[in-house]
Amino acid sequence: MLNYSATYTDQYQLTMAEVYFQKNRHNKKAVFDYFFRKPPFNSGYTVFAGLDTLLDILENFRFTQEDIDFLYKQKLNDSFLDFLKQYRFSGDVYSAKEGEIVFPTEPVLTVEAEMLDAQLVETLLLNVLNFQSLIATKAARMRQVAGDRGLIDFGLRRAQSAGAYHAARAAIIGGFNATSNVVAGKDFGIAVSGTMAHSLIQSYEDELTAFRHFAEIRPHDCVLLVDTYNTLKSGLPNAIKVAKEMEARGQQLKGIRLDSGDLAFLSRKARKMLDDAGLQYVKIAVSNQLDECLIKSLNEQGAQIDLFGVGTSLVTGQPDSALDGVFKLAAYDDAPRIKISESTAKITLPGQKQVYRMTGENGVFVGADAVCMKTDDTLERMYHPFDKLKSMNVKDFNKEPLQHKVMSAGKRLQKQQPLTSIQQYASNRIGQLPAEYKRFENPHIYKVGLSEKLNNLRNDLIHQHLDNL
Amino acid sequence: MLNYSATYTDQYQLTMAEVYFQKNRHNKKAVFDYFFRKPPFNSGYTVFAGLDTLLDILENFRFTQEDIDFLYKQKLNDSFLDFLKQYRFSGDVYSAKEGEIVFPTEPVLTVEAEMLDAQLVETLLLNVLNFQSLIATKAARMRQVAGDRGLIDFGLRRAQSAGAYHAARAAIIGGFNATSNVVAGKDFGIAVSGTMAHSLIQSYEDELTAFRHFAEIRPHDCVLLVDTYNTLKSGLPNAIKVAKEMEARGQQLKGIRLDSGDLAFLSRKARKMLDDAGLQYVKIAVSNQLDECLIKSLNEQGAQIDLFGVGTSLVTGQPDSALDGVFKLAAYDDAPRIKISESTAKITLPGQKQVYRMTGENGVFVGADAVCMKTDDTLERMYHPFDKLKSMNVKDFNKEPLQHKVMSAGKRLQKQQPLTSIQQYASNRIGQLPAEYKRFENPHIYKVGLSEKLNNLRNDLIHQHLDNL
Repeated sequence: MLNYSATYTDQYQLTMAEVYFQKNRHNKKAVFDYFFRKPPFNSGYTVFAGLDTLLDILENFRFTQEDIDFLYKQKLNDSFLDFLKQYRFSGDVYSAKEGEIVFPTEPVLTVEAEMLDAQLVETLLLNVLNFQSLIATKAARMRQVAGDRGLIDFGLRRAQSAGAYHAARAAIIGGFNATSNVVAGKDFGIAVSGTMAHSLIQSYEDELTAFRHFAEIRPHDCVLLVDTYNTLKSGLPNAIKVAKEMEARGQQLKGIRLDSGDLAFLSRKARKMLDDAGLQYVKIAVSNQLDECLIKSLNEQGAQIDLFGVGTSLVTGQPDSALDGVFKLAAYDDAPRIKISESTAKITLPGQKQVYRMTGENGVFVGADAVCMKTDDTLERMYHPFDKLKSMNVKDFNKEPLQHKVMSAGKRLQKQQPLTSIQQYASNRIGQLPAEYKRFENPHIYKVGLSEKLNNLRNDLIHQHLDNL
Repeated sequence: MLNYSATYTDQYQLTMAEVYFQKNRHNKKAVFDYFFRKPPFNSGYTVFAGLDTLLDILENFRFTQEDIDFLYKQKLNDSFLDFLKQYRFSGDVYSAKEGEIVFPTEPVLTVEAEMLDAQLVETLLLNVLNFQSLIATKAARMRQVAGDRGLIDFGLRRAQSAGAYHAARAAIIGGFNATSNVVAGKDFGIAVSGTMAHSLIQSYEDELTAFRHFAEIRPHDCVLLVDTYNTLKSGLPNAIKVAKEMEARGQQLKGIRLDSGDLAFLSRKARKMLDDAGLQYVKIAVSNQLDECLIKSLNEQGAQIDLFGVGTSLVTGQPDSALDGVFKLAAYDDAPRIKISESTAKITLPGQKQVYRMTGENGVFVGADAVCMKTDDTLERMYHPFDKLKSMNVKDFNKEPLQHKVMSAGKRLQKQQPLTSIQQYASNRIGQLPAEYKRFENPHIYKVGLSEKLNNLRNDLIHQHLDNL
């Protein structure tokens, strides 16, 4: 449902591109890194998502004639606009796998391309990766506390416009089972789910007739919403009546859903009423402003819940609405580049780099990633990026490279993966991370350090710039 | 860039629609109200936005053959799917004007349509109106504190996927001047804005050459970003040098931009340095994690700022990521309907209604809206919706109807309005609201009450349902 053209960008990418073009700097080789500075939700890990979406769009990223006509009115130079007519993204992309768990400061994805080319895709890249990584991380936190119970995305109505579409995709990567969002289900091959709202019941004179009609027409997929009038006195007794009628017809009521009130209390009451009626097989679904903290709390209270429907907090990432990922120039025309900034934490990492993850026995993560120069040949010690008193001996660990080449000269090197494979990969990687990094309160901080060469290069460039002042 | 088909919906709308269809209830007349329960940002008012977008989509809301093929696999009945092939939205829509300021509990928009028809558009309607109203409200709060300074949407990179597109539109309604988002600028006729990022400067050996090249190629629209290395020691002196060179060529530097550090301090320093150099005409733009509270604080500190670029908090509404608008059945087959729920605040308002806004002399809002039955002929007193001890005499006020018919049998009754007209309307209406409703901390609560007839009808229906338990 989304058509991206190359106008999916910030205006300043075009004005800068014009300067590069006019000054004949546009075709110099550039290296840009995508990384973020702060994990969302104070999470101890972040799930990287959106890569497949990004690569798909990049393969077809161009300006339409309508775009060019519009840009003409924006005071862009004619010969530059002629150049844009022919523009195609033709860079190389190196990236962590989609579903990888990643950490602040390290380059998660790197674009090596002509300067203009890399510049023009910045906004798109940030827009896609920041959001899907935010939502996949949120979903993974919910999966963490939901165990093997069902998790369904109910968020379309409260999503940020069409944000729902990619949120549904990212939710699956983080561990969700299904979505209520039909178009996302269709386009991404996600299981779609949904049965009834209050309006169906309200449209009848009485709740029981509404339930009976629904069970008659959709006996194969019947989940009755029991809180329209009174959950315990009306909804549940009527649902049990209909379940018994279904049994008499050789059918089974699939579940009931609670959408208001005290879900811990009501779900226990409901379970007991259903069990007492011999309906142990009827599942209990709940919804209503859930998030990972509420799901955890419901579990701790012994709530009897089989399936959680999650809306707003999933598809918008509430309380954090954005991952703060950035895309920064690391090299131009084969020379390493740096940004100093007013705040130390915003100083960038220069040059072409690779990230190595330290693993111990059985593949368990040590809790340390090292950012190295591509030209590094050994890695024995890594250095804290901002605190020069801190370093760590990493000589004896296994080291996995994090970035892999995924696009060459604007062409993808592998086909789209099924979402379930990405979900499985994310789940495996989260499984390799020790528990103390996964707790919600003050998680252990995963170390990201710099190799000696990178650390020295960065210090040299900082001093060069300071000496110029 | 967005193509909506009728699969932009929750699956349960389809399963319910199947039941309506099979039970021959689909063509009974239904009335659904759109309203919200809590204003975002603890704001004293909410700006209603998204109406034009919604009406446009509704006029073309249908299932494609690809949709039908997909639904066929979702266990929906064949004759129902045949019906869906022909489906068009053909209902009537009554609505507050786009840009109206609206309040919790009151029906902002009402759909009168066949039951199936109204049900199928629920998700779309909520998705569009909830988000744009959230962002228009956020933008209006920023306009409130920015006075006549410039406000530009910089949010595309941190937006929730394609949510940026409608966020840019809603920001204009709330009072923004421009956007960096090129495709939104193109499609909505919004002024686009943007000049340079750090990457341009980093790509050069030195900042001064970067500034000179930019000024040479784009002298008509030159805003120099001065914080790449050191704002006061490098960025500003270089910008001043280039400004003087431009003057010598008969050109003018338009502005400088600060994107990090203490913006209050740096902007004052920058203003002084520019003024001392005789560059009083050079504007100062700032960006970096701004929101309405920071803009207010910068003003209070005497910051010298002409233009604010706002990203994340504008386009995502941070810290509130969603308006909690709902769409509830109020009548079916000419009989009023109600939802009782476990929580009193969620009890709905039955029947076909109109909202009247009380105004005093000079059009100033009294701070009271009354929800009435369409059949009410007088309105002398309004009643608190939940507290039966409270009521208010409204006899002597002027009364403006809030809802107007905007769509008849699926066709719009008026053409798309220019965004600037909607912006002007919102601005006028906010101007009619007394200041105490507009403050950020504990704003005065705008009263929404019920007419006597509506209050009685609701009480009767509640008692009917309670008697049945």
